[in-house]
Amino acid sequence: MSDQRVDKLWGGRFSESTDAFVEAFTASVDFDRRLYRHDIEGSKAHAHMLAHVGVLSDRECDDIVAGLDEILGEIERGEFEWSVGLEDVHMNIEARLTARIGAAGKKLHTGRSRNDQVATDIRLWLREEIDHILAELKRARRGLLDLAEREADTIMPGFTHLQVAMPVTFGHHLLAWYEMLARDSARLRDARRRVNVMPLGAAALAGTTYPIDRAYAASLLGFEGVAANSLDAVSDRDFAIETCAAAALIMTHLSRMSEEMILWASAQFGFVDLPDRFCTGSSIMPQKKNPDVPELLRGKAGRVNGDLISLLTLMKGQPLAYNKDNQEDKEPLFDAVDTVRGSLRVFADMVPAIEPRRERMRAAAMQGYATATDLADYLVRKGVPFRDAHEVVGKAVRHGIERDLDLSELPLDELQAFSDQIGPDVFDVLTLEGSVAARGHYGGTAPDAVRARIKEARTTLENE
Amino acid sequence: MSDQRVDKLWGGRFSESTDAFVEAFTASVDFDRRLYRHDIEGSKAHAHMLAHVGVLSDRECDDIVAGLDEILGEIERGEFEWSVGLEDVHMNIEARLTARIGAAGKKLHTGRSRNDQVATDIRLWLREEIDHILAELKRARRGLLDLAEREADTIMPGFTHLQVAMPVTFGHHLLAWYEMLARDSARLRDARRRVNVMPLGAAALAGTTYPIDRAYAASLLGFEGVAANSLDAVSDRDFAIETCAAAALIMTHLSRMSEEMILWASAQFGFVDLPDRFCTGSSIMPQKKNPDVPELLRGKAGRVNGDLISLLTLMKGQPLAYNKDNQEDKEPLFDAVDTVRGSLRVFADMVPAIEPRRERMRAAAMQGYATATDLADYLVRKGVPFRDAHEVVGKAVRHGIERDLDLSELPLDELQAFSDQIGPDVFDVLTLEGSVAARGHYGGTAPDAVRARIKEARTTLENE
Amino acid sequence: MSDQRVDKLWGGRFSESTDAFVEAFTASVDFDRRLYRHDIEGSKAHAHMLAHVGVLSDRECDDIVAGLDEILGEIERGEFEWSVGLEDVHMNIEARLTARIGAAGKKLHTGRSRNDQVATDIRLWLREEIDHILAELKRARRGLLDLAEREADTIMPGFTHLQVAMPVTFGHHLLAWYEMLARDSARLRDARRRVNVMPLGAAALAGTTYPIDRAYAASLLGFEGVAANSLDAVSDRDFAIETCAAAALIMTHLSRMSEEMILWASAQFGFVDLPDRFCTGSSIMPQKKNPDVPELLRGKAGRVNGDLISLLTLMKGQPLAYNKDNQEDKEPLFDAVDTVRGSLRVFADMVPAIEPRRERMRAAAMQGYATATDLADYLVRKGVPFRDAHEVVGKAVRHGIERDLDLSELPLDELQAFSDQIGPDVFDVLTLEGSVAARGHYGGTAPDAVRARIKEARTTLENE
Amino acid sequence: MSDQRVDKLWGGRFSESTDAFVEAFTASVDFDRRLYRHDIEGSKAHAHMLAHVGVLSDRECDDIVAGLDEILGEIERGEFEWSVGLEDVHMNIEARLTARIGAAGKKLHTGRSRNDQVATDIRLWLREEIDHILAELKRARRGLLDLAEREADTIMPGFTHLQVAMPVTFGHHLLAWYEMLARDSARLRDARRRVNVMPLGAAALAGTTYPIDRAYAASLLGFEGVAANSLDAVSDRDFAIETCAAAALIMTHLSRMSEEMILWASAQFGFVDLPDRFCTGSSIMPQKKNPDVPELLRGKAGRVNGDLISLLTLMKGQPLAYNKDNQEDKEPLFDAVDTVRGSLRVFADMVPAIEPRRERMRAAAMQGYATATDLADYLVRKGVPFRDAHEVVGKAVRHGIERDLDLSELPLDELQAFSDQIGPDVFDVLTLEGSVAARGHYGGTAPDAVRARIKEARTTLENE
Repeated sequence: MSDQRVDKLWGGRFSESTDAFVEAFTASVDFDRRLYRHDIEGSKAHAHMLAHVGVLSDRECDDIVAGLDEILGEIERGEFEWSVGLEDVHMNIEARLTARIGAAGKKLHTGRSRNDQVATDIRLWLREEIDHILAELKRARRGLLDLAEREADTIMPGFTHLQVAMPVTFGHHLLAWYEMLARDSARLRDARRRVNVMPLGAAALAGTTYPIDRAYAASLLGFEGVAANSLDAVSDRDFAIETCAAAALIMTHLSRMSEEMILWASAQFGFVDLPDRFCTGSSIMPQKKNPDVPELLRGKAGRVNGDLISLLTLMKGQPLAYNKDNQEDKEPLFDAVDTVRGSLRVFADMVPAIEPRRERMRAAAMQGYATATDLADYLVRKGVPFRDAHEVVGKAVRHGIERDLDLSELPLDELQAFSDQIGPDVFDVLTLEGSVAARGHYGGTAPDAVRARIKEARTTLENE
Repeated sequence: MSDQRVDKLWGGRFSESTDAFVEAFTASVDFDRRLYRHDIEGSKAHAHMLAHVGVLSDRECDDIVAGLDEILGEIERGEFEWSVGLEDVHMNIEARLTARIGAAGKKLHTGRSRNDQVATDIRLWLREEIDHILAELKRARRGLLDLAEREADTIMPGFTHLQVAMPVTFGHHLLAWYEMLARDSARLRDARRRVNVMPLGAAALAGTTYPIDRAYAASLLGFEGVAANSLDAVSDRDFAIETCAAAALIMTHLSRMSEEMILWASAQFGFVDLPDRFCTGSSIMPQKKNPDVPELLRGKAGRVNGDLISLLTLMKGQPLAYNKDNQEDKEPLFDAVDTVRGSLRVFADMVPAIEPRRERMRAAAMQGYATATDLADYLVRKGVPFRDAHEVVGKAVRHGIERDLDLSELPLDELQAFSDQIGPDVFDVLTLEGSVAARGHYGGTAPDAVRARIKEARTTLENE
Repeated sequence: MSDQRVDKLWGGRFSESTDAFVEAFTASVDFDRRLYRHDIEGSKAHAHMLAHVGVLSDRECDDIVAGLDEILGEIERGEFEWSVGLEDVHMNIEARLTARIGAAGKKLHTGRSRNDQVATDIRLWLREEIDHILAELKRARRGLLDLAEREADTIMPGFTHLQVAMPVTFGHHLLAWYEMLARDSARLRDARRRVNVMPLGAAALAGTTYPIDRAYAASLLGFEGVAANSLDAVSDRDFAIETCAAAALIMTHLSRMSEEMILWASAQFGFVDLPDRFCTGSSIMPQKKNPDVPELLRGKAGRVNGDLISLLTLMKGQPLAYNKDNQEDKEPLFDAVDTVRGSLRVFADMVPAIEPRRERMRAAAMQGYATATDLADYLVRKGVPFRDAHEVVGKAVRHGIERDLDLSELPLDELQAFSDQIGPDVFDVLTLEGSVAARGHYGGTAPDAVRARIKEARTTLENE
Repeated sequence: MSDQRVDKLWGGRFSESTDAFVEAFTASVDFDRRLYRHDIEGSKAHAHMLAHVGVLSDRECDDIVAGLDEILGEIERGEFEWSVGLEDVHMNIEARLTARIGAAGKKLHTGRSRNDQVATDIRLWLREEIDHILAELKRARRGLLDLAEREADTIMPGFTHLQVAMPVTFGHHLLAWYEMLARDSARLRDARRRVNVMPLGAAALAGTTYPIDRAYAASLLGFEGVAANSLDAVSDRDFAIETCAAAALIMTHLSRMSEEMILWASAQFGFVDLPDRFCTGSSIMPQKKNPDVPELLRGKAGRVNGDLISLLTLMKGQPLAYNKDNQEDKEPLFDAVDTVRGSLRVFADMVPAIEPRRERMRAAAMQGYATATDLADYLVRKGVPFRDAHEVVGKAVRHGIERDLDLSELPLDELQAFSDQIGPDVFDVLTLEGSVAARGHYGGTAPDAVRARIKEARTTLENE
């Protein structure tokens, strides 16, 4: 980063130069330079549009486009010298363009302002990032469907309140994860439509006196719409907040799945093995195999919640149109997007590597009176009102706890002491396989229901 | 609220009764009773579905439905005695139903659990509330279009950085407000689709062994879809978070518009009068007319941001499926919905009552060198490169400030000292009317562009 | 709540009455009436002060004080009729006072404003609530010390990354909880000093022309200081935010302890039993004993984070001095205080009732190679560099895993294959008791260190 | 940053190497390397302590200390090669130490763990940063006192609800800013005491078997206390959250002062000039002088609110002791500290440069019936009950508005029409100077009260 002091392009009316610390404090080039590619893309489209309506000559347009392409190369080869004195990515590139091609470079800014320029850049950048995130979501969802299919018959305890509630299939549990991410994809696609609207042409706040053709520029840039109000176009950051809110939900989901993986990888649960490459060791306890990746994913949820609050606080109470406050929109948005994209990538890598320990899962499902509800349902089918059946089973469970026996291990006569509706066929309903198979309706945990849902989901996923 | 101690319906296995403070601490009926109507609606549909598949007899179903309708009447007439000992709205209603109709009442809970019941209730309630909010949004947007149409020619200063930047039309400014709310409507409609999915049938977490017909129940309740995974169905609160995020954006928008109204109502700006009924006085300063309603709207933005964070924190790291933590979802969601609905209502009431002080607006636009950009554009049209024109104008403005004269008030020869491209026609571009009319492209501030956008927006709005 | 329309006390200059919905929207009496006792306390002190400086006659002061005491009685007996039309608690009480005692009542407001009055009321209320919270913290801390003393020798696995790391004592673990709450007490006492400063006398914003004696009023009200700037006094809400931040940390701590209790109460860990009265059952699964209270405590953390964000957002960017926005300070603060106070109460009730299952804890500590670090330390004492010892132990653990044996179960010759420094005395360092006893320094897990810390902490606690 | 793959120090038990992306995802060296100086400081103290208790020989200690000093030099000269493969700042430095000095380097880690090491590093770093922030706060406060003294007699309008309420002095307004920052200093000093406690000696979670002397190490490092529980010591991040909460309040205050500066710098208020070096221009509107620095300060409030939420979410529900989640504590804390420190620096630079436009302030105070309260007080002194006086003045103001005259401009007979208590002396109380001088009590706006407070505050400030 160059420290040299630079003549500000807007310095005309100023009688005092900017203080060095203030210059660094107010400059954004340290973080907004990552928008360079989209800034150049937007500038090229703007130049083509200006030529299209006759504000630039074809020659000027060609010079600008060629100059910008060369600058793009310089940046990507690491040869571009960024200057804090030039404040931001836009000024840096424009100053370089003018240095390269002369007067035509100065004409590029005709009919636009940094206000609409930066809003356009961020939207172009964010649209691309959303597509990357959607691709990672798709990969993770596909991985979950594959794993769920493999484990459609694997029985594990289903928990509520972290207490064993009923047996479920591991495939069914993985499909619950799938549903979370499927909603995330849908939500992000909805957000993308509102991101993909072009502010360019709003200029500083009121539009421009040049005969611009905004629809033409939008078509060059792949925007689905054109912002319908210039004041709104330069002051709106809804698209950033909405994307950040969607990102916070993705991270919330990853934090929940990670919590489960951490539990399952503990010695006490022992339901899964995570491959070494997603774990790390301890500098002092040589026996440790710590589920670092799920722990980090869980922790990173806080980060995106914070980014979301940063943006909401930022916009609260801001009068129209553009205020310098808005420069603070970038870092939280960058952080949220980077966090979600990296987190989904490592999660999608990890899913296929999860190794269930099926015998541990099954053993855990055998504990905790997991088929008590099946006994209640059995009684109801025999004509006992549900609430009465519930009470009968409650007493039987308390009896089992006192005797340290599962319901299926209690002798028939002890069971019958609680209800005379209980017969020898009661033991059929207390097997794990019987219990899960009996829940075969849409959305239920039965292996067949799981497989049907996987088939349905695959079709949806691949057609998205 | 009755204090009498009640036999818990799940008390079978418990050997110790719940402590009174714990009972109150864990009960939710104080706040979830507002769901009574949707709880009854869901129960009636569940009963019809159970009869449809033969689990209930028609007679039982009729008794249940009639009993529930009577309870609905009791509640609405204020005759229902709510009991903290019965924990929640579901238990209260079910206990009353059984008291009224006997054994059939106990059968209503067949094939469901409070876990899927409460998730269904909230979604039914939230769907209805979203429709109310959408209606208020529509009313507010319509009011803005009407006011914008009336003020399409009114000139005011456009601000960036709260500095006068360029003249704009007041109608154009109001359309910027319109765009914010139009996005809010679209975002909320997207959220509504994800709210309107039925969890019923998930039972506690794994589905049920009864031969339920979830699609039938969904059609009775007007749900667009059926939750595809039972574990997810009872643990998912995305719909609440997504709605809350949309609500936070609505309140952010209202805070911005309110900030502007507060500024405009100040003696220093004096751009608008707000009718007395949206203001209050001071207990000590008799001359005050405080813009209370906009101030409250601005302040209430914090509230919904807080609700959003409450919900995101709540769900962070929760393992599946249902945990008691989720009981904490209701109050933030209720608060967010009530806040947004009330705020939009009062905002929509206020919009038509805003009285612009047109002469003050116009006078302010005359200050601050608002047409400096027009001078720059003039120079560019004469062939001066944009950046050079910018510098010329900057110097002219500095000169004007020193002489305390607007650009239009400077003599021609003084202007010409800055650029020999300036001719006598320069004064044409410095009128306010000329300035705004020159920005006639899509999204621009020209009265004609404003009217065209209003026409387009009306069509969209009325077809939503 | 009375619906009757009321002549506003500030209605002099208004030509239009307030709209009914606006009236309800802007009124605060529904929630600020809970300040009635502190409002009356403040008013009585104000009256005494005004009499002290001669602005009121003694007779007027006596009438006011007697009238306020009667109103206090009316409110506490539920006989007071609150009116939304009178906006807030202050106006309701003052109107009633004037109705009771006539002209003297109108003089009470001399030299003050609702702006300093409400700030005074909230601080008086909050000071009292902080004292209640400090008392609950003390009770919870005392309970933890008692339980820690009882369990000073109980061995359980210490976890990092939810993996068994080293054996620790349960008493030591409980002391970790103690430290969190001890910091909370200290933090809250610091906050209390900044709460306990009197705004009264700031009047609307600039002070008053009456010859008030602020120090006198402060001494009557037990304030430690007098706000040094009137503009700041009416606009400052730092004390609410700081208390809310301290509350958020308390809830964060409770969420962490609750997470551990939920884990420990699971079948997989089985480290503790929670008494039935802190648990509830399931409406569908009769065998469940759900740790509802810890789950709710965990969930309630979100609530206070939300309250904190509400208040921070509220104050962001507000110009001085008082704005109506500030009315929105009360509900988040009330909610945070109520949540923390109720949560600590139920937590303090629960602590003595936690029943450790010592044999389960001990058995878990035997798993997971918990004494591997002790082996490394053993090797270091024999002269092996730490990092080398670490690697040796890592290999021995991997070997143990492959053979499904704990380190202490491996034959000496197999151990010696990893390092020739290992002798028969190695088995001494691998016992759980030896491991914990060896960490006897200040802050360590050894039973003696635990008991020493308990003694130290008791002294501190009882002298607070 | 070196990409070379490195043998992990904890690699003993692992059979598969870490995936490259996972390695980067889980590494922290990119951000925690800024702790290098405090890591080395802590390591040196640890080495001295180990030598003090005989675990290291003096020779080993000397070698370690010398080696660490050389590494410090390498880092500060930019010669140190950081490696992502070595995960974090601790491993990078230790590996380099061992490379330089051999076996003794491996012994440095004796009796500690990265868990207590990182907690120690952050606290050392944060303590230093807090001192920098306190110094900036002091500088800003001193600047405010100086400016307030200069402007003790300057009259401006005092606002409530952004409506002119009463005349105040500009010095008084600046002292309101002072009070906010004075509380910030006090709050931060309180937080510092809880930061300045040493975790070292907690090792991984349970303490260590080596005969460490924690008090000795604490004295070397300047810690005021030693963490009393090892489990708590490695899992506690309260100090980060408390500091972040204090930082959020500082930024909230700066956002409020900035909002006022932005208002005051607008053409409509015109109360102050900000020097050019705190402003920037526009790329399209040459006449603009945008108050960029205050705008950025206002915007940056959101950032620290976000950091606070990140940390609170991070810790929510984490079981003890250390989890990898905690690695996510650094970036939000770094960001909050950097933001506050930079913001205060630029604010403290800006304060002395604020140029009041006294005539504009005075003219504004003349508008808006700012002395209406003085008229009410006048009437009360004549024996009119306050509430009646309030109503009289309200009617007089309404009359003035209708006639477009200030109260002081109304003829005596028109005033007397509202109350027969009004005499010719009424015009004395309506001057601005009379109004402010009459509020001379402690905390009031009178020039003398302002000067007295400045004197008092200077004494406090310089003795802090």
